[in-house]
Amino acid sequence: MKSIQLNPVGAMSQLSQSEVDHLRQSTNSQLYALFRNCCLAVLNSGVEQDNYEAMFAPYENFNVNLVRRERGVKIELINPPPVAFVDGKLIRGVHEHLFAVLRDILHMGAKYHLPDADTLETRVVTDMVFDMLRHANTIHVGGDPNIAVCWGGHSIGESEYRYTKEVGYQMGLREVNICTGCGPGAMKGPMKGATIGHAKQRYKRGRYLGISEPSIIAAEPPNAIVNELVIMPDIEKRLEAFVRIAHTIVIFPGGVGTAEELLYILGIMLHDQNSGHVLPIILTGPKHCEAYFQALDKFIGATLGPEAQQLYEIIVDDPKQVALKVKQNQQLVNDYRRSTGDSYHFNWSLKIDTQFQVPFIPTHENMAALDLHMEQEKSELASNLRKAFSGIVAGNVKADGIKQIREKGPFEINGDSTLMAMMDDLLRSFVTQQRMKLPGSEYKPCYRVVTE
Amino acid sequence: MKSIQLNPVGAMSQLSQSEVDHLRQSTNSQLYALFRNCCLAVLNSGVEQDNYEAMFAPYENFNVNLVRRERGVKIELINPPPVAFVDGKLIRGVHEHLFAVLRDILHMGAKYHLPDADTLETRVVTDMVFDMLRHANTIHVGGDPNIAVCWGGHSIGESEYRYTKEVGYQMGLREVNICTGCGPGAMKGPMKGATIGHAKQRYKRGRYLGISEPSIIAAEPPNAIVNELVIMPDIEKRLEAFVRIAHTIVIFPGGVGTAEELLYILGIMLHDQNSGHVLPIILTGPKHCEAYFQALDKFIGATLGPEAQQLYEIIVDDPKQVALKVKQNQQLVNDYRRSTGDSYHFNWSLKIDTQFQVPFIPTHENMAALDLHMEQEKSELASNLRKAFSGIVAGNVKADGIKQIREKGPFEINGDSTLMAMMDDLLRSFVTQQRMKLPGSEYKPCYRVVTE
Amino acid sequence: MKSIQLNPVGAMSQLSQSEVDHLRQSTNSQLYALFRNCCLAVLNSGVEQDNYEAMFAPYENFNVNLVRRERGVKIELINPPPVAFVDGKLIRGVHEHLFAVLRDILHMGAKYHLPDADTLETRVVTDMVFDMLRHANTIHVGGDPNIAVCWGGHSIGESEYRYTKEVGYQMGLREVNICTGCGPGAMKGPMKGATIGHAKQRYKRGRYLGISEPSIIAAEPPNAIVNELVIMPDIEKRLEAFVRIAHTIVIFPGGVGTAEELLYILGIMLHDQNSGHVLPIILTGPKHCEAYFQALDKFIGATLGPEAQQLYEIIVDDPKQVALKVKQNQQLVNDYRRSTGDSYHFNWSLKIDTQFQVPFIPTHENMAALDLHMEQEKSELASNLRKAFSGIVAGNVKADGIKQIREKGPFEINGDSTLMAMMDDLLRSFVTQQRMKLPGSEYKPCYRVVTE
Amino acid sequence: MKSIQLNPVGAMSQLSQSEVDHLRQSTNSQLYALFRNCCLAVLNSGVEQDNYEAMFAPYENFNVNLVRRERGVKIELINPPPVAFVDGKLIRGVHEHLFAVLRDILHMGAKYHLPDADTLETRVVTDMVFDMLRHANTIHVGGDPNIAVCWGGHSIGESEYRYTKEVGYQMGLREVNICTGCGPGAMKGPMKGATIGHAKQRYKRGRYLGISEPSIIAAEPPNAIVNELVIMPDIEKRLEAFVRIAHTIVIFPGGVGTAEELLYILGIMLHDQNSGHVLPIILTGPKHCEAYFQALDKFIGATLGPEAQQLYEIIVDDPKQVALKVKQNQQLVNDYRRSTGDSYHFNWSLKIDTQFQVPFIPTHENMAALDLHMEQEKSELASNLRKAFSGIVAGNVKADGIKQIREKGPFEINGDSTLMAMMDDLLRSFVTQQRMKLPGSEYKPCYRVVTE
Repeated sequence: MKSIQLNPVGAMSQLSQSEVDHLRQSTNSQLYALFRNCCLAVLNSGVEQDNYEAMFAPYENFNVNLVRRERGVKIELINPPPVAFVDGKLIRGVHEHLFAVLRDILHMGAKYHLPDADTLETRVVTDMVFDMLRHANTIHVGGDPNIAVCWGGHSIGESEYRYTKEVGYQMGLREVNICTGCGPGAMKGPMKGATIGHAKQRYKRGRYLGISEPSIIAAEPPNAIVNELVIMPDIEKRLEAFVRIAHTIVIFPGGVGTAEELLYILGIMLHDQNSGHVLPIILTGPKHCEAYFQALDKFIGATLGPEAQQLYEIIVDDPKQVALKVKQNQQLVNDYRRSTGDSYHFNWSLKIDTQFQVPFIPTHENMAALDLHMEQEKSELASNLRKAFSGIVAGNVKADGIKQIREKGPFEINGDSTLMAMMDDLLRSFVTQQRMKLPGSEYKPCYRVVTE
Repeated sequence: MKSIQLNPVGAMSQLSQSEVDHLRQSTNSQLYALFRNCCLAVLNSGVEQDNYEAMFAPYENFNVNLVRRERGVKIELINPPPVAFVDGKLIRGVHEHLFAVLRDILHMGAKYHLPDADTLETRVVTDMVFDMLRHANTIHVGGDPNIAVCWGGHSIGESEYRYTKEVGYQMGLREVNICTGCGPGAMKGPMKGATIGHAKQRYKRGRYLGISEPSIIAAEPPNAIVNELVIMPDIEKRLEAFVRIAHTIVIFPGGVGTAEELLYILGIMLHDQNSGHVLPIILTGPKHCEAYFQALDKFIGATLGPEAQQLYEIIVDDPKQVALKVKQNQQLVNDYRRSTGDSYHFNWSLKIDTQFQVPFIPTHENMAALDLHMEQEKSELASNLRKAFSGIVAGNVKADGIKQIREKGPFEINGDSTLMAMMDDLLRSFVTQQRMKLPGSEYKPCYRVVTE
Repeated sequence: MKSIQLNPVGAMSQLSQSEVDHLRQSTNSQLYALFRNCCLAVLNSGVEQDNYEAMFAPYENFNVNLVRRERGVKIELINPPPVAFVDGKLIRGVHEHLFAVLRDILHMGAKYHLPDADTLETRVVTDMVFDMLRHANTIHVGGDPNIAVCWGGHSIGESEYRYTKEVGYQMGLREVNICTGCGPGAMKGPMKGATIGHAKQRYKRGRYLGISEPSIIAAEPPNAIVNELVIMPDIEKRLEAFVRIAHTIVIFPGGVGTAEELLYILGIMLHDQNSGHVLPIILTGPKHCEAYFQALDKFIGATLGPEAQQLYEIIVDDPKQVALKVKQNQQLVNDYRRSTGDSYHFNWSLKIDTQFQVPFIPTHENMAALDLHMEQEKSELASNLRKAFSGIVAGNVKADGIKQIREKGPFEINGDSTLMAMMDDLLRSFVTQQRMKLPGSEYKPCYRVVTE
Repeated sequence: MKSIQLNPVGAMSQLSQSEVDHLRQSTNSQLYALFRNCCLAVLNSGVEQDNYEAMFAPYENFNVNLVRRERGVKIELINPPPVAFVDGKLIRGVHEHLFAVLRDILHMGAKYHLPDADTLETRVVTDMVFDMLRHANTIHVGGDPNIAVCWGGHSIGESEYRYTKEVGYQMGLREVNICTGCGPGAMKGPMKGATIGHAKQRYKRGRYLGISEPSIIAAEPPNAIVNELVIMPDIEKRLEAFVRIAHTIVIFPGGVGTAEELLYILGIMLHDQNSGHVLPIILTGPKHCEAYFQALDKFIGATLGPEAQQLYEIIVDDPKQVALKVKQNQQLVNDYRRSTGDSYHFNWSLKIDTQFQVPFIPTHENMAALDLHMEQEKSELASNLRKAFSGIVAGNVKADGIKQIREKGPFEINGDSTLMAMMDDLLRSFVTQQRMKLPGSEYKPCYRVVTE
């Protein structure tokens, strides 16, 4: 048995005795299994693999302990993956990521016991999202409003990957910082490109911010470049963190996860109170993605209407133009924040409705019960569609989802026939384009579209 | 009416909406009057005056508001003292101190609602003390264990003041950092001396940490050199902050306040669980103070016994030797902390009994009720003597105390006759030596020693 | 006509009036044409092209002026290549590189008027090499002895390029810094890999040092990552700069240039006075290069003997092992420098003979006159072989060389038949493996091996 | 015999072999005695003593060696004064000052062999002054134009000293940096005050620049606060350094040295080519100095005329006003430099005539030969008066001067009777006011005014 002890870094190096006690007590909790798995994912950083079982299988005897001393807490790793070590020493970046996991999963997890969905207050959730980002030292007061949140598939083709790198490079040349959801593909490319752009401009404060959540981190471990890592408790808070910290959102080609993200932000922006709110959204990809974006745009138009279509701009095959837009948007966002008295570094004034905050648990029952009819407010329809896609992501790559599918068969999604037909088309195109899972495995759908 | 608005700095520049709300609500609270007065004291920084009424009189129409914006909170000053401004701009150090006041009085004040004395848990108080020091960014993990807490009178003679500067200079040459209680005299001298020592050694990380509390800050406003300011909620937590953050304690000549501090630390060190604990204490002053220290030492010997006398070392007229000892003590403390697994930057393992944590309210009743007999445990006797001296400090320079004395006459202190005689002698010598109040005013005792 | 003026940075921002005058006078000199061409090369940074004529052709109307003000000197660019600009602003890294060119070509060029070859003092050359490196701020006193000088071809295959990146990555993980000759291929790969390794280890002081010289910079412009650029006056001083600043030398597969470099360092190390000198050399490449290194090793063995072969180690297909060795070598070098009292950052004690310092001008006459017989001292034979390869590099990619070949046909190299046969074999293998020029163009040899 | 070896710092840590050789050879030179004495003066930093013989007497067996290693040069001190050490370790600031002495006296001394007076080119001297300031890293390109050069007596009364501190404090509050001639009195006060002002404003880049010269440094060793030290080769170059680096000149009360400085700058400013040149001069002191400044002003008016009087402003007893002016002058100077294209950090465009650059050697012959008549150009008269005062400074406190006076009696100064009468009055007032030597010793005049 190999074991190594790690000294705390960052916020975890300054804990009170009761905070250390809380941490230690948590080692018996359910959170602890989560913690162990997130640690393992972080230790596998850089390994390209979205099959969490395949990734975890070799490390059954991996374990992690908290070692308590008066002066603080250490992390002890038992049988950790060798890939995280150089000449017997843990890579510094991974070391930092492990303590980010400790901080967000156990330390902040112990701090927040959120009430049930029905009594959930919007305000409380937003405050928590802020508190977690602040605690992770990602709110840089005084810095430029230069964070581009980049979304897009973890499984994309080589030419699309190169395109995300090129966009990142052009943004880096313009001193834009990058935030993604961690993991490979469109979440790694923009960061990688930006490092070169930043280096050329001698920009020393390059930020490569990764925002993950426990159920996805195993499928999408933080890549090597991420120098700020935050693990939000669930997908809804992760999405809120993205949109509150973003100054522009750039969406690359992707699969169901990307569709979920797009529907999430559109649903929010369609809220009455957000009319006039400035948060630019850009959809972009290489030449051959033109049809992909047309299909997506058509789907949005048919379901959420032209007012939703006006919320984004599609730019095909022009990385320089994307970066230029992002740069120009910074000024617009800056002016808007100043005029509304909002913070430059956390978008407090964006109204996010409870339906976008309550965690959606993708069970067969919940999936079947989704209200997928055209006759509802656009914002609500967006919310329900978002949940449908969220469920499919879970069925594809998340541990719980996969288990359920294995036991009970595919999720059934039903709604009115026009909508279902459109959804079916979109999903099939994702399958055809290999956007569901990393290539190499054949994709077996985890859902079934049922028409009423 | 002159008014100026200040942008938040430090921790106060990153508040959540609900934190801002809490702050704003506090503007109706009792805390708010405290906040206003502390701000006024800080704005008078550098003015040598321990008569809070004389200091505050010219500023009756001074006020302070909190201005709320989505992005945070600003401090608005109405009719502030001109002394704090240079060409119409607030001095940066004062600006920082004002937000330290906001942070500690209102923000942290709202966070902690400590239970009543009888249910007070030692652990909870210590955690709070730690949390406040941490939140003020004074826990520097990774730094050397080099903090010398310096105690001593705010009203001392010129030669004593020069001596404190010389000791500070010698400590600065040895890269020791200084923590005092803010204010003039022995609290300013060591800092001032250390800046020169640090400059000579090109030591860039010089720390001049001031720990105050609301009822004393008006009488002892932070001097110009303090670059880290913390305002603890009451005198007991301030004392605990001192001893937990100290690596050595240096005690210069002083009056009742200094006697209170000495009794506090001796009472704690006499606790069984602290036997063997390494926290060096040095009493020092210039040649002519030899008698003063002999008197003090005799008083300690007679009341707390030789085991108390062994806890400190008296060094007369040898600044270099003091500094050398402080430097050597660092190593001892370092070794002790390592061997006990304690933090290098917060003395968790020092046992502090509840009687040293419960706030002592110096009313005539409480003062009269103090148990001042020789037949009790040394540690308890120290605690009770500490309270007696604490009450006299209040009667001398604190607003509440002065008001009570004015209304009801001097405090009566009673106990067994030997003890009372010794106390009376000590107090009289403080009066004769002008250690009670800054020179210029005649001292009118606020206490009367009564023998049973 | 487009024109842009650049403010001076670095050492060039602090010039005396007479230094500015000297610079201005130099605008009529021969150096100035060199300066203009180097600027153009730097402005084309990142363009992969080793045909200087093709690169320069579109920019015939490019020019560069020095604008004199009392406060210093500006560079004015007329019709610069758009590739160096982002939204109309020059890329910061290129800006810095331009002033490095000004510093090294004109400013230092004016300072040194070296005597003719026959009176050249070894000491003076070495002092100049030191002075130029120091003036470029590349001598970091107090830093670790962690510079790996990487040599290898500018034209290498994809798998070899990936290998150089992987070695760079493994060195970066071990906090090794990289120095190469600028340009693409084996000079870019190790830097690129190291940036990722450095980022993972949160190593902030990553150095990517490029050492070039005027006649090669057009063919091998500094890549984007180079954050310290020095342009030595000629190939011999460039080579000396490499070996004096190196703590280890890593040699990747390459063509004649790489062979020149290997013979240079071996020739020096074979000098009597360098016996016992510690300067580790590692030859490494991917699996399929095994034969390549065997051929090279055999050539060395046959010409310079086993004592030369003992000076290097060949590691095939094991990037981790290479990096580990480099790390271990640091300690050896450190110990050696300490024991000899030598500087940790400039290898003063390495003896470099005049024949390795006198510039070799590759004319047809000089090439034909090279003494290429086996019966001479090993160190001298190495020197002469080095010159032969140097000439071929010139004929391949340097402006002057190409012009001569065009006018007078290929260089003739002659010597004793055994040696000539071996050389011919080696050169042919370089041609076959496309190591002479970047792929895409057919290679037409610039030399002819003649047997006596 | 006690000995200690010091590692090089700053520029001296990066020397070439030939530079080290030059240094070593200089150990036999005349410069070396100078070097030894300057080292001794620096080691006595903080000791208030202007009698160099008294200062040096106890250290007859003090010596300093240069220890040569391949990697550089060390300073070895034999029997150094204990005052410079803390617990056996040299104070860091003194360590830095010693290497500044090495740099300026030996290293730069070896670089410059200036031609004789008659062939001296203005340009060459100015370039040398610049080169020395640059080499000492005192030219901060990009910083604000915020250097106030402060002149004034080394021997001033307590109230005048306090006044210089207060002016320094008010300047420090306005983020002005201070340059003086090192030493006590008016050269220490402004620095000391500024440190407090800088600390209050949290100004981290406080500069306390001391410019000395070998013959004065023993009488006025750099005080503890000086964090940049430059030792110019003679008084004329020191004066030129002052005026080229100044953005404002503040003149406090002083004796002959101060009069020399005032005449120097007025003589320069009166040059035709400097008409319109912006370099503000402020004369200031406490209330009781009003008469002193009136006398000085009258002397200037009577000798150099009203156009000289218009070059300065006298501010009595108003430190805040002085600091405000200095701040406002920064803007004027900034605008002027921009409009003339001059450097913000070195006043190239100020014309300094040869007569102000040629070293004046104060022998009895030279003093007697001074042309002190009213019928000459104002600028020349200023130059000659400057020399007369310079000679008296030498006779008062410099080793060579004192020796001459001891041997040949007082200098005779002669000229036309009106002028001589005025001079005599001024000098007598300096004597009466104890401005010639530090109090404690009786002043014996080193000069005799002779009327024709």
